[in-house]
Amino acid sequence: MMDYSLGKGDFENWVVSDTAFSPDTLGKTESIMYLGNGYMGLRSATEEPYLKEVRNLLVSGTFNKFSEEEVTELPNVSDMTRLDIRVDGERFSLELGETKEYVKQLNLKTAELTRTFNWTSPKGKELRFHFRRFVSLDNLHLIGMKMDIESLTDPVEISFDSGINAQLSNTGSQHFHEGEKRIFDKRFVQLIQTTIESNIDIVLNTAHQLTLNGKNVQEEPVMNMDRRKVWLTFDLALQPGDKLELEKLTTVYTSRDKEFDTPEYQLKKLREHSLNDLRSSSEKGYDALFQSHKEAWKNKVWSVYNFEVNSENPFDQLSLRFALYHLTVMTPAHDERMGIAAKALSGEGYKGHSFWDTELFILPFFTYSNPEVAKSLLKYRYHGLAGARSKAKDNGYEGAMYPWEAAWPTDGEVTPVWGAVDIVTGEQTKIWSGFIEQHITSDIAFAVYQYYNVTGDQEFMNKYGYEMVFDTARFWTSRLEWNKAKQEYHINNVIGPDEYKEHVDNNAFTNYMAHFNIKLAISYYDKLEKENPTLLSNLTKQLDLKEAYKLWKSKLTKIYLPKPRKEDAVIPQDDTYLHLNVLDLTKYKQADKVGTLFSEYNLEQVNQMQITKQADVMILLYLLEQADNVFTNEIKQANFDYYEPKTTHDSSLSLSTHAIMANDLGKNELAYLLFKKASEIDLGPFMHSSDHGIHAASLGGIWQAAVFGFAGIRLVEGKLRINPRLPKHWKDMKFTINWKGQPVSLTITNDILTIHPLNGGMITFEVFGNTYETNQEMEVKLEEETSNIF
Amino acid sequence: MMDYSLGKGDFENWVVSDTAFSPDTLGKTESIMYLGNGYMGLRSATEEPYLKEVRNLLVSGTFNKFSEEEVTELPNVSDMTRLDIRVDGERFSLELGETKEYVKQLNLKTAELTRTFNWTSPKGKELRFHFRRFVSLDNLHLIGMKMDIESLTDPVEISFDSGINAQLSNTGSQHFHEGEKRIFDKRFVQLIQTTIESNIDIVLNTAHQLTLNGKNVQEEPVMNMDRRKVWLTFDLALQPGDKLELEKLTTVYTSRDKEFDTPEYQLKKLREHSLNDLRSSSEKGYDALFQSHKEAWKNKVWSVYNFEVNSENPFDQLSLRFALYHLTVMTPAHDERMGIAAKALSGEGYKGHSFWDTELFILPFFTYSNPEVAKSLLKYRYHGLAGARSKAKDNGYEGAMYPWEAAWPTDGEVTPVWGAVDIVTGEQTKIWSGFIEQHITSDIAFAVYQYYNVTGDQEFMNKYGYEMVFDTARFWTSRLEWNKAKQEYHINNVIGPDEYKEHVDNNAFTNYMAHFNIKLAISYYDKLEKENPTLLSNLTKQLDLKEAYKLWKSKLTKIYLPKPRKEDAVIPQDDTYLHLNVLDLTKYKQADKVGTLFSEYNLEQVNQMQITKQADVMILLYLLEQADNVFTNEIKQANFDYYEPKTTHDSSLSLSTHAIMANDLGKNELAYLLFKKASEIDLGPFMHSSDHGIHAASLGGIWQAAVFGFAGIRLVEGKLRINPRLPKHWKDMKFTINWKGQPVSLTITNDILTIHPLNGGMITFEVFGNTYETNQEMEVKLEEETSNIF
Repeated sequence: MMDYSLGKGDFENWVVSDTAFSPDTLGKTESIMYLGNGYMGLRSATEEPYLKEVRNLLVSGTFNKFSEEEVTELPNVSDMTRLDIRVDGERFSLELGETKEYVKQLNLKTAELTRTFNWTSPKGKELRFHFRRFVSLDNLHLIGMKMDIESLTDPVEISFDSGINAQLSNTGSQHFHEGEKRIFDKRFVQLIQTTIESNIDIVLNTAHQLTLNGKNVQEEPVMNMDRRKVWLTFDLALQPGDKLELEKLTTVYTSRDKEFDTPEYQLKKLREHSLNDLRSSSEKGYDALFQSHKEAWKNKVWSVYNFEVNSENPFDQLSLRFALYHLTVMTPAHDERMGIAAKALSGEGYKGHSFWDTELFILPFFTYSNPEVAKSLLKYRYHGLAGARSKAKDNGYEGAMYPWEAAWPTDGEVTPVWGAVDIVTGEQTKIWSGFIEQHITSDIAFAVYQYYNVTGDQEFMNKYGYEMVFDTARFWTSRLEWNKAKQEYHINNVIGPDEYKEHVDNNAFTNYMAHFNIKLAISYYDKLEKENPTLLSNLTKQLDLKEAYKLWKSKLTKIYLPKPRKEDAVIPQDDTYLHLNVLDLTKYKQADKVGTLFSEYNLEQVNQMQITKQADVMILLYLLEQADNVFTNEIKQANFDYYEPKTTHDSSLSLSTHAIMANDLGKNELAYLLFKKASEIDLGPFMHSSDHGIHAASLGGIWQAAVFGFAGIRLVEGKLRINPRLPKHWKDMKFTINWKGQPVSLTITNDILTIHPLNGGMITFEVFGNTYETNQEMEVKLEEETSNIF
Repeated sequence: MMDYSLGKGDFENWVVSDTAFSPDTLGKTESIMYLGNGYMGLRSATEEPYLKEVRNLLVSGTFNKFSEEEVTELPNVSDMTRLDIRVDGERFSLELGETKEYVKQLNLKTAELTRTFNWTSPKGKELRFHFRRFVSLDNLHLIGMKMDIESLTDPVEISFDSGINAQLSNTGSQHFHEGEKRIFDKRFVQLIQTTIESNIDIVLNTAHQLTLNGKNVQEEPVMNMDRRKVWLTFDLALQPGDKLELEKLTTVYTSRDKEFDTPEYQLKKLREHSLNDLRSSSEKGYDALFQSHKEAWKNKVWSVYNFEVNSENPFDQLSLRFALYHLTVMTPAHDERMGIAAKALSGEGYKGHSFWDTELFILPFFTYSNPEVAKSLLKYRYHGLAGARSKAKDNGYEGAMYPWEAAWPTDGEVTPVWGAVDIVTGEQTKIWSGFIEQHITSDIAFAVYQYYNVTGDQEFMNKYGYEMVFDTARFWTSRLEWNKAKQEYHINNVIGPDEYKEHVDNNAFTNYMAHFNIKLAISYYDKLEKENPTLLSNLTKQLDLKEAYKLWKSKLTKIYLPKPRKEDAVIPQDDTYLHLNVLDLTKYKQADKVGTLFSEYNLEQVNQMQITKQADVMILLYLLEQADNVFTNEIKQANFDYYEPKTTHDSSLSLSTHAIMANDLGKNELAYLLFKKASEIDLGPFMHSSDHGIHAASLGGIWQAAVFGFAGIRLVEGKLRINPRLPKHWKDMKFTINWKGQPVSLTITNDILTIHPLNGGMITFEVFGNTYETNQEMEVKLEEETSNIF
């Protein structure tokens, strides 16, 4: 049972709690309370094992392919969180005996997981348990665990097994060769594994420190080894009132780590280095290591991203902090060769792959809040040009065709080919996204555009950005299909954002975004011609831009862009959508479980109805406002009213875009509801929605709904627009964005926007149609003309 | 809690029962009650899942190697036994709610596993469960399961998931590529997997038939697919008194099956064939299929191996039936390319490999009881000559050096190289058996000798046996090391049967058996020269026997054979053993758990003391009696008294040999105790001894202790000797052996041996020194001269 009210004092609205243990809904807190630091993610499985548990330790960038028939994925590294505890010889399990005062909680401020409870064994012995755990943000390789057991009533024998277990797999696929196992000094346990295809060495070291009533326990544990497993068995007698404390510290290193991924790499050195790190960490101990970790969170996260909301519903404040926590732990900010996974580092879902989720739903947060990290993520896509170019070539196109799913930058397309069962034929359905969901390429170009305009980072553009935009535009001109009858360019046989509709022609989003991408390339070419002809000349040589530019110019205006219908301003999602039958979705939209529709209809049948999975025309209207701003509010309103009731929101990417659009259109209460719904995707009461991992994009979406939605921040035609419309439940909100290299603090109430360029640089911005300029704190009275409200 | 008294009437002393469910000792009944038919073994895990369960489906001969660093092993094929059952939405588990009248039992006569109990859910709904399961001996590819659920008190909603799950691995190593998954006609579920290295296709098909109060349920289940998994979800409402019956039938086929392992093999045809088998089996239904299975057990097993014992302790009768049951289900009698695994087909222990366990502990049962099967097992070793020859060559020797552990015949040596942790250094210990435990080669030659003498199967010898004996003898002459000082041949740096002693010189067993092997080759050569020069000439060409014969003759008499010491007639186990310190083993021999010694001493330390793991000199004395009979009873007695107290019996191979020897030596009560102890290795009250699988050799040992021990059957110098000495707890025993191609029935009481050559052929035999001859039923009064008793 989730509870959000347990944080007190300094931790008010900082604590996510589960106050009732249930062995059938373990996935919920395992996922949403997972710990990480971008280098690795550790699913928050309980120490003692349960049937339905999923233990995951995922290390960014360690992709491996089990076999030619499978796609590469983030492998599940060894577990060291499991403790098999026996109390007087009986297995300790919360399914047995009696449990009181159970609380498992994640403190977002300190990024510490704790679990406390009193447990009475079936034999009647009462014990107090207290578990703590963190994945250090100070030393990215370090995991700290602590267990206290206090005997409350009786003398009791405690014994437990603890070590490193590499018998885990990814739902059956084993990515590792078993390497050497070793116990040094009867204390430091080391296990090595090597990925079977990508040949990455993983070295894990763990050490235990045991005290009884504060005194070191001298007795040596029993050492054990089995296949893919090494562990120690401890055995202790407790008298009533005795307190046993265990500290277990672990270091994780891999040969993919930047500092080791060099031609001079030697496993021996990695082993030594990782073991030395553990030895010196062990000398410090849990408390000191946790202190450094907490300070890192303060300095690197909360003092940078501080986000305050005064709401009637404290949950709103918590959910924004929850989003910022997760945006931090999911992001491999330390290594530009790595991207963000769709399920973050919290589970095996989507195999650790990066989708457009990053560029459209997560990157904007970093672009506006921490441009250095945004740059690293965009450089991941720059390195991905290699894979994108080979995908284009393999498909008979020019330039860079980004993979729908991306793993290691040079891997290219890694989308799996087979999905769920077809309930009509009994066959497995084919996943077409890797072949025909092509808008990802322009989405990445858009992200470059947005980053450049918000940050003004010219160096990035010179080194990486222009090349990305030019080569993606080259792809699109080669992709366009000439329709002779209509004398225009079409893009046929694609999947748009609405993935229910496979093999459609002229998906509006895809066509408009391709058009945007080519147009952007032309404008950058023109700009460089004037401003930096040397760079242009270099890029021209490399990418054959002379010829490309000609094609861009000649094809751009002939691209078919589906226009709003005259009668109702509705933009056809694709060539056929508006001719399909309409199904009343009310009952499916109300169902707890997304996807119940598919127990009654197969994809082919859904394909034949006006049913949309997620924002499609909606996201087009929202995105292009930041470029051309060609769609009027009337068009937005008409399309929202037409498409929203036909949208199942069967993607966690859907709600936040709808929340922003609803707020733009003055549907404030609906916007707030959609924001809350988006917040509840992971943090809400649905106990199975996060089983395979948290929804990374929706966490970015929570931030977007608040900042782009309620605060009304928007890049429009290169300028900063701020049209705030707070929910009536909010008194004020306060946060910081980065604009053209400068942090800008914003405080918004219902009447007043207080803006403060913190470095004293001049900023220009627009509020409800009026333009302002300031280089110091300034208040703007918020008065919206009613004509702006829809 | 094991109970052996539940079989009544026709099933008296036929039923092994567990009457108290415990989630912490699941391995016990999973292993000892496992089902099989030699083609496959299905571990008897419960339908509903538990934390410590081990689900195993092993198919003989489907060996695969996960990687170059690992050895080949029998892979764990998909599971179809698991049923995830929910009662009113709550997970059904015997750890929850209340269970009454719990009985899980294996009926040895019908080879059916059943489980019945009443369960009251945490919400208070009372249900009666009845599970049944068999692995058909009639159709080797068929598995039948049945579940009845009766609602006793309330209306209740039952739902369950059932299908095929290929997410299993071998302790983490995944041997399969995921193949196609398919549901035909919304009913027939098919899953294909292919081993990653040996490229064997496995096709599993399963079908469900559901009835409510005897009427077919029409409602369609929900179809589901996930990675390596396909399943159906059923949902039914029961009124009080309603009975739900589920039949689940499965077929298992592989491309290694003899009929498919041809150059014309096509997966398509295997799929069709296996699905058709399931379709036609489904038409018959569980009851009819079970009837055919039962009849197969009657005709192929119990009417052939019937073994009756009248004992004060009915457990003795049960344990002999238990042994015969397991000797049947473990043996791939259908395919001479396959051997018997050390843990049978009951678990992953020892990786499905064949050891000397087969030839010395299991094969004698078949040689004396079912020579056709014995021949198939010896032909497995004949095919194994390929691997044995390459092992010899790789080690710089001639002839055939059999692998210590064998898998697919051509694989050669497959013993793993790394074992348990060294508790002193913290490193993994090296397993030397594959390099230096060399007696396996003469053990196999001995088995050929025994088979030939007992059966008189000259055709086998001509086609296979001579070649095996000649080529193993060739190995030994190349292996002998000339000791210049002593002017004799030594065999240095070996492991004998006592595996505690690594790297010893002149292990008595190894030297004597090598001597036996060479001597046997000489005698066969001489015999063939006279009786079948054509065959000899063919073999001579193939094996260079002219040269080999010269070497055999010249080296044989110069082999060092450790003689009994003059002072006490003790034969030194090896060159150093008798000079080592002696440790009092009393406390270790009493410990429940074999191997506690190793939590106090590492192997190197045990190596330095007079501690023996298992019969070593003992088994030498026992075996060679069947050939040269050079050891007097005084020597046997002296060595038994010297070595037994130094033997930990830390191998399941040890007790039965000691029981036979004790009985030979007139230590009747000790012999009976050792027999009981041997019977209890799997069937006894130790709840963890069978976790990794049953002890195949010890099951053959139970039969040997009864037949070679109590009944005193022995091949001695080519003749049949019968010196019965029944335990005083036994009234009589009755069984059948095969002698020279004829079944011979034996009934033994304390006073009288009744012998009946069933085909009317003449047999010659010796009883306590007197020789008899008969071709019809004959009674021999048993009168032992006291001088024979020690």
